Amino acid sequence: MSEKTSASRRAFLRTGLAGGLAAGGAALAAGAARADDPLITDLEAQPWTQYLGDGVDAAPYGLPSEHEAHVVRRNVAWLTADPVSSVNFTPLHELEGIITPNGLCFERHHGGVAQIAPSEWRLMINGLVERQLVFTLGDIMRFPRVTRAHFLECAANSGMEWRGAQLNGVQYTHGMIHNVMYTGVPLRHLLEEAGLKGSAQWLLPEGGDAAGMTRSLPLEKALDDCLIATHMNGERLRPEQGYPARLVVPGWEGNMWVKWIRRIEVGDRPWHHREETSKYTDLMADGTARRFTWEMDVKSVVTNPSPQAPITHGHGPTVLSGIAWSGRGAIREVHVTTDGGINWHQARIEGPSLDKSMHRFVYEFDWDGAPLLVQSRAVDSAGFVQPTKNALRKVRGVNSIYHNNGIQTWAISSEGEAENVEIS
Amino acid sequence: MSEKTSASRRAFLRTGLAGGLAAGGAALAAGAARADDPLITDLEAQPWTQYLGDGVDAAPYGLPSEHEAHVVRRNVAWLTADPVSSVNFTPLHELEGIITPNGLCFERHHGGVAQIAPSEWRLMINGLVERQLVFTLGDIMRFPRVTRAHFLECAANSGMEWRGAQLNGVQYTHGMIHNVMYTGVPLRHLLEEAGLKGSAQWLLPEGGDAAGMTRSLPLEKALDDCLIATHMNGERLRPEQGYPARLVVPGWEGNMWVKWIRRIEVGDRPWHHREETSKYTDLMADGTARRFTWEMDVKSVVTNPSPQAPITHGHGPTVLSGIAWSGRGAIREVHVTTDGGINWHQARIEGPSLDKSMHRFVYEFDWDGAPLLVQSRAVDSAGFVQPTKNALRKVRGVNSIYHNNGIQTWAISSEGEAENVEIS
Repeated sequence: MSEKTSASRRAFLRTGLAGGLAAGGAALAAGAARADDPLITDLEAQPWTQYLGDGVDAAPYGLPSEHEAHVVRRNVAWLTADPVSSVNFTPLHELEGIITPNGLCFERHHGGVAQIAPSEWRLMINGLVERQLVFTLGDIMRFPRVTRAHFLECAANSGMEWRGAQLNGVQYTHGMIHNVMYTGVPLRHLLEEAGLKGSAQWLLPEGGDAAGMTRSLPLEKALDDCLIATHMNGERLRPEQGYPARLVVPGWEGNMWVKWIRRIEVGDRPWHHREETSKYTDLMADGTARRFTWEMDVKSVVTNPSPQAPITHGHGPTVLSGIAWSGRGAIREVHVTTDGGINWHQARIEGPSLDKSMHRFVYEFDWDGAPLLVQSRAVDSAGFVQPTKNALRKVRGVNSIYHNNGIQTWAISSEGEAENVEIS
Repeated sequence: MSEKTSASRRAFLRTGLAGGLAAGGAALAAGAARADDPLITDLEAQPWTQYLGDGVDAAPYGLPSEHEAHVVRRNVAWLTADPVSSVNFTPLHELEGIITPNGLCFERHHGGVAQIAPSEWRLMINGLVERQLVFTLGDIMRFPRVTRAHFLECAANSGMEWRGAQLNGVQYTHGMIHNVMYTGVPLRHLLEEAGLKGSAQWLLPEGGDAAGMTRSLPLEKALDDCLIATHMNGERLRPEQGYPARLVVPGWEGNMWVKWIRRIEVGDRPWHHREETSKYTDLMADGTARRFTWEMDVKSVVTNPSPQAPITHGHGPTVLSGIAWSGRGAIREVHVTTDGGINWHQARIEGPSLDKSMHRFVYEFDWDGAPLLVQSRAVDSAGFVQPTKNALRKVRGVNSIYHNNGIQTWAISSEGEAENVEIS
């Protein structure tokens, strides 16, 4: 290593040191005290250094450590009376970065999981087209494919928060979201094959499950960025996520991302089917309902600390971590507060910032052990700012269970315990 | 929809149409013929539309479809006599996009998988430091964390190709690679805590497994971009990937990414331990060995079609898909040929282009059914061009099993079968 390199390295070290110490001061004290810890000094106390472990033949498809058995999708009993038409929740407080592992992506079914062999899957395009077509999966794989990361959020995510803080855990308040790298075929390629008639304006994608899920989709969105996806995070779709093929509708409410897709009817007006009239519409204070709220608004939440993930290390350097997303583009900024909004700090966005994809933010601070009121507030690339819950209620009342993107508050006690609260 | 919008949509359709038809012409013909397929017209032939499937309580941690049971890591018998000190391979031909799912990331062990409870994990930093420190996992989680996608490639990936085409499948020729979104703490933060002495120039990271894996790592690299990673693709590391913490050495050979990391010794010169002298060095034609070949050179391979993934749909529109990566940065361009290098075409890079991360490329072409010689050639952001195997052999001979980044050739028969071949 040359003198020059070494000198610039030392300069770098000096610059970096302050940040390191600010965040790690407590670790320094604790770490020095542990210099005689038998778990590092005594090989007998570390049996894993003494035996030959599992070989490469042990698990052709690997699984998490047994020490992570608590990291699972979970139901809320009073929300899941009938598990085939219900929901479970992503354990957001156990995850980091921006990718949701396939095994932990929340599920929402209306008639349970359809089990379809790839060889038996078909996709029909009919209605206002020049040629009614039926594609096999093999046909789909011959079209140009793209790869893109997108969040999928259920319209009802945080829905219980309209009437006040109810569910004590970010898994339950915000866990109807996942973020996945999809590979699939742009829907426009398939529509172009069929040939759209001049009057074509709307699509009706239909699922192959027992619920026969249907939603009206404007043709313009379909031609813009919708996909028939076959892969998630590198591998084939999981059965509960629509295997072998689902619709991907970037940035729009999850209910429109029809799973086990079997048919797309082309029409000239919306259908107003059950899942877009009696459900997934915002019921206003005056009893009327908003027709079609597709785009998911800018939103964020602190995942750590949170009720399921208290601060257990006492005062001193503490990492606050969270997620942010917007159906209108990327996240430009995330601000966090630890004092209920008196002071706001800019958080650092970590990992790729991608369009209509989850973003990770982190903020390091020195906790003095006093109680905290933690919040995050995101701003998207379209300029939208995440509102307070009360600002939302002023406009929309509290009848709805959908489209709540309000700012979430966690109260942290001096013991580090976290609780879902609201502040005026 | 306004007239203006509708007009621009039609303009868009006309533009897009050519691309769609070029790729989907065959599907069009086939699709039209399937309009009466009972698998779409007859609900009785689609039992999954008739029953309620599994509910949200069925799989707290989800798994792939039973129809994907063949998508697994696989061994090569003659390379894996002893599975605790051996390797298995990522099924690249079954994957798409840029993320490798955690369950399919290839494994390379020297003493099997260490099973370490998070509460019992320790990391010591000792040697030329002001303060010898021992960190717990809780300590690590208090430092600033970052999230970054990086490929990990074993130095021996494609190693059997030095002496000619030997393994008939991209899983075996190129499957000692995976690409993961890591979250972890920059190693420089921990070194700053310990305080580097002026003479510090090298590190010796040591694993907690029975092999006690050690490698010499230049301090400059450690301070630049190395991480102590705790999460992969959102969730905690898998046991076979170093749970609860591993070293991440972006762009450098996989052997240096010490798993189950337990100690980092700081010194003033390299140690020349077993795994960097008798192994992981390039043995030249004259019998001397290169000391330290850390950076993984620019490389690419076509994953589909390939010997395990023949073309089964006959002639017509065909999608060629592959992966490219470089330890020196991002991938700038990938060229593909289907005629053994007479004509080269620029492939489309799909998905995020990230530093020292896998890239996906695709190229659509109309196969006339004649035999093909398929190759890909990547160029990285540092300007390096992937060489032919013969160009490599001219410089390095054929004694080595390491660092082969040569251009791979698949011969495709008129039946669509693919074979690993070499062309002069």
